[in-house]
Amino acid sequence: MKPRVTLITLGVDDLERALRFYRDGLGFPTDGIVGKEFEHGAVAFFDLQPGLKLAVWPRASLAHDSGVGVGPSSPTDFALAHNVSSKQEVDAVMTQAAAAGATIVKPAVDTFWGGYAGYFQDPDGHLWEVAWNPRMLPPD
Amino acid sequence: MKPRVTLITLGVDDLERALRFYRDGLGFPTDGIVGKEFEHGAVAFFDLQPGLKLAVWPRASLAHDSGVGVGPSSPTDFALAHNVSSKQEVDAVMTQAAAAGATIVKPAVDTFWGGYAGYFQDPDGHLWEVAWNPRMLPPD
Repeated sequence: MKPRVTLITLGVDDLERALRFYRDGLGFPTDGIVGKEFEHGAVAFFDLQPGLKLAVWPRASLAHDSGVGVGPSSPTDFALAHNVSSKQEVDAVMTQAAAAGATIVKPAVDTFWGGYAGYFQDPDGHLWEVAWNPRMLPPD
Repeated sequence: MKPRVTLITLGVDDLERALRFYRDGLGFPTDGIVGKEFEHGAVAFFDLQPGLKLAVWPRASLAHDSGVGVGPSSPTDFALAHNVSSKQEVDAVMTQAAAAGATIVKPAVDTFWGGYAGYFQDPDGHLWEVAWNPRMLPPD
């Protein structure tokens, strides 16, 4: 198995709300909700870096498709990290997320690993870390 | 905010078990567990495609670092998709995952969106979809 992830699908409770958050609030490129013609098919995809997409899909659809039971939000299930080039950019992204309706669970602070990072939750409780890590700087 | 994810962190209940699953079972490259010198710092990183890493980190550490409460596994929180180049490769990856100790929650079948896919759960209940999608083929 190649070490590769091509799509990160977030289970959501309200697809329209999730679309608004990621498209309008965070500015992620998307064609909006597609697949409405299929039962449990309605989904929105967002382009991340080349080779990786984000999707928001109702929890009930993910449960139906995969065969697992529908579960509630569990914030320690996972976190997505968004690395940036400076402490100032961390602050700017956290401000943008808050304005988009995110819950700031940890304002950005200096970290034990020598960086600067904060956490927010999207409207479905999914954790994002916004981080400046001098040993993991983004290419742009 | 740029549309970018640099790190996917999975909350786990047993760090050594998660390391064995991803390193020995799925063959993901890693330096093993690092950060043991810090309280709540022990973590393992795996290289995915360039610009993206996977991490396994105890749920208690993720909760401590982010300020959210520790929650249980909730399989519909998210899914990671691993796209491959053929139906045969889907079957091969599902077989590898099962041998590594994954729970096969949905054996691969033809999908409503014209592909072929199955789902497994890692030892901590995290969902992976292994998919052949003729409209989303990997570069290699």
